[in-house]
Amino acid sequence: MKFETLPGFRSFYPEQCSVRNYIFDGWRRAAKHFHFLEYDTPTLEPLELYKEKSGEEIVSQLFNFVDKGEREVALRPEVTPSLARLAGVKAKSLKRPVKWFNIGEQFRYERPQKGRLRSFYQFNVDILGEPGVAADAELVACLVHCLQGFGLGQSDFKVRLSDRHLWVLFLEHWGLADSDQASALSVLDRLHRMDSEQLIKALRPYFKESSERFIDQLNQLLSVKDIDDLVQYFSSLSLSDEIADRIETRLKDWTSFISLMQSLGVSESIQIDFSIVRGLAYYTGFVFEAFEASGEGRALAGGGRYDDLIERLTGNTMEAVGFAMGDVTLLDLLESKALLPDFHSKPDLMLFFTDESARSKALSDAHYLRSRDWSIDYPLKLQSFSKQFKIANQKRLSLALVYGSEELERGQVLLKNFKTGEEMRIERNPEGIHERLKVVLSKISSDESSLHKPFKD
Amino acid sequence: MKFETLPGFRSFYPEQCSVRNYIFDGWRRAAKHFHFLEYDTPTLEPLELYKEKSGEEIVSQLFNFVDKGEREVALRPEVTPSLARLAGVKAKSLKRPVKWFNIGEQFRYERPQKGRLRSFYQFNVDILGEPGVAADAELVACLVHCLQGFGLGQSDFKVRLSDRHLWVLFLEHWGLADSDQASALSVLDRLHRMDSEQLIKALRPYFKESSERFIDQLNQLLSVKDIDDLVQYFSSLSLSDEIADRIETRLKDWTSFISLMQSLGVSESIQIDFSIVRGLAYYTGFVFEAFEASGEGRALAGGGRYDDLIERLTGNTMEAVGFAMGDVTLLDLLESKALLPDFHSKPDLMLFFTDESARSKALSDAHYLRSRDWSIDYPLKLQSFSKQFKIANQKRLSLALVYGSEELERGQVLLKNFKTGEEMRIERNPEGIHERLKVVLSKISSDESSLHKPFKD
Repeated sequence: MKFETLPGFRSFYPEQCSVRNYIFDGWRRAAKHFHFLEYDTPTLEPLELYKEKSGEEIVSQLFNFVDKGEREVALRPEVTPSLARLAGVKAKSLKRPVKWFNIGEQFRYERPQKGRLRSFYQFNVDILGEPGVAADAELVACLVHCLQGFGLGQSDFKVRLSDRHLWVLFLEHWGLADSDQASALSVLDRLHRMDSEQLIKALRPYFKESSERFIDQLNQLLSVKDIDDLVQYFSSLSLSDEIADRIETRLKDWTSFISLMQSLGVSESIQIDFSIVRGLAYYTGFVFEAFEASGEGRALAGGGRYDDLIERLTGNTMEAVGFAMGDVTLLDLLESKALLPDFHSKPDLMLFFTDESARSKALSDAHYLRSRDWSIDYPLKLQSFSKQFKIANQKRLSLALVYGSEELERGQVLLKNFKTGEEMRIERNPEGIHERLKVVLSKISSDESSLHKPFKD
Repeated sequence: MKFETLPGFRSFYPEQCSVRNYIFDGWRRAAKHFHFLEYDTPTLEPLELYKEKSGEEIVSQLFNFVDKGEREVALRPEVTPSLARLAGVKAKSLKRPVKWFNIGEQFRYERPQKGRLRSFYQFNVDILGEPGVAADAELVACLVHCLQGFGLGQSDFKVRLSDRHLWVLFLEHWGLADSDQASALSVLDRLHRMDSEQLIKALRPYFKESSERFIDQLNQLLSVKDIDDLVQYFSSLSLSDEIADRIETRLKDWTSFISLMQSLGVSESIQIDFSIVRGLAYYTGFVFEAFEASGEGRALAGGGRYDDLIERLTGNTMEAVGFAMGDVTLLDLLESKALLPDFHSKPDLMLFFTDESARSKALSDAHYLRSRDWSIDYPLKLQSFSKQFKIANQKRLSLALVYGSEELERGQVLLKNFKTGEEMRIERNPEGIHERLKVVLSKISSDESSLHKPFKD
């Protein structure tokens, strides 16, 4: 084969496309339940937009090029910078809170590997223009609800919760200047990937001879599991009055946040985990990541509050909190838990005939029935009924209408139900066939949907 | 604003995104009625794939570049070459006929103008592996059905039908060698854009001193309006026996094709029009284009049979017929005919409250009702009921549940119907609220959908 698909890109044959659309439908359904509105942004954007958000080093991960009009452009690696532009431009006229979502393809030039492709889809959900924790709670609830909608339960995933704001206060307590906080946090973001020797070495520039003592306090913070622990932890530190006040204020936000999530029925899926820092420098408040609760524990989604980004990119102030969920690890997880339905597709009804004259009648009925919203198929070649029944069997068809010459002479057709084996002669009257289909197919589909998995809590 | 959208690309705010999704839904619905299955292909492909299909000159219209792995790549300008690869690779195992469709973004580096953007969406519908005219008829029927599904009628659009096969026989009759046919057809494809002097000049290389006589016969062919005209026209030419036989065989295909389209109820939308040549060299049989019937008469969709392409690209034989419809001119037409519905989006129900304790109850109900597939929203800030009713009004809300302290003391909530002005105290029991919503909202939505436009014939 000469023209292979590029590495890290996917072709979707109908079966894979059904799976992909099942994911999209689940995302859209969750967004609808929370009344987020869908938006979309260009697939190709000025390169500058991404450099401005993430710095020059992002370029190595982009599909970027110079277009025929000498513009530096890039395939979008994420939707947030474009969202910031859309919302920022209309910051003054948009009714707040803005609750928006996007489902779109993203492109990153990375080494393809399990769970990571060069092209993938992302579900982005954001609340803009609302600084209060009620927005954060609504978003985390939407994330949990979305995963539950795919049939995933508490044993399948957890949402780990942390707080850039408290992290910064903690670093201030340790005397770190503003300028050092971001880079220290990016060290802490890589905590899991370092042994204790590497960690000390990486932290030494910030904490000098106090590094060991810092790591002790750090380990206690990392062992915090609930809000009581958290309050307890900070009251055990000898804080300056000023920092103690600011931490107390922030802990009140925590209490509200946790209590809102309790009301929203999602607190059981939440774990406090301060090892979640989220590398991206632009987060300003609560941050969270959803992980597989077993297996390799891979990340399913991540997000948090980023109150400064829209102002930085557009000059207009607009607070923001959002999350992104990718399709690749989600799909792997649903597959491994056998949570993907059977995607076999069949028409509502096939029309069978063996000669021109019967075909002409069948096609005329097809025309009518399709306009009544039925999915109708028929063989494009004239062939024997026995061949056509074989096709019905291969397609796992439920229903066919047989245009036999005997029936047609009496103005009738034969309705064959392959599920029950029943056959029924009915008048060949399109309106009547339509009414009959409503009855028979609602019976068949209610039998089939009784196998459907319920929403799992 | 620093990072503007690139020329020819679109941002979709929620309202525009609803319009776009309305188009996608209409496309998907038509495909479902005809039982086409959705597939998708990579957005980025090897440049070679497009050069192989369309020749070196295509490159000037592409967004192409060299990626970080030194691969020559291009954003897809059309889906057909990728479809040919998908189907060709599995030519031996795919059950025929293959009825597939795609909805996808395409990219062309052209001068943006009315009806033409650098990024647009296309609905591609193809039947593969079936050489008979029944496939062509099914496709044209799907095209007509799709446009009718948007409320467009016979006065709004026409499908013009022509035949590359007959064109080639006609040119053979005029003694044109194989090698000259394609280039002569590409001249004829530009017929409309030339005056008679230009036309003679362009045809001279092929027909020499017979050019005037050719143009006379050409004009008669162009005036053919129905199948009887067509038969009549060819019987009036003095054809060689061999060509006469081949034309007779082809005219039998025409008769079947027209008769199948009659059965499928779409013949009223069809016009025979031999000025449709479709420039692309790869067509081999019937070709067709759907046009606006008024206004600027712009093309809405185009397609035809291309039996050789899959073999040329993949080495595996697979006949094919397909069409593509773009979103841009379709959208313009639907707008100009006022055929776009009102896309105002609102939740099924909003929950209103003024204090923490009521909020906690409301959020708990939101959790339950969302899991029962309702779209639920509530204010993220605590605010007065009068402010909240103002929001309800702005959102043109139908229903709200009011968590007033008096009602809550009695274990009740107030259901407000903004459409009728009715208020009703109901038990605050999530299951009961769910049942109540089913009744009230089905009433509201049946009232609203009685305004919905029917399928127009």
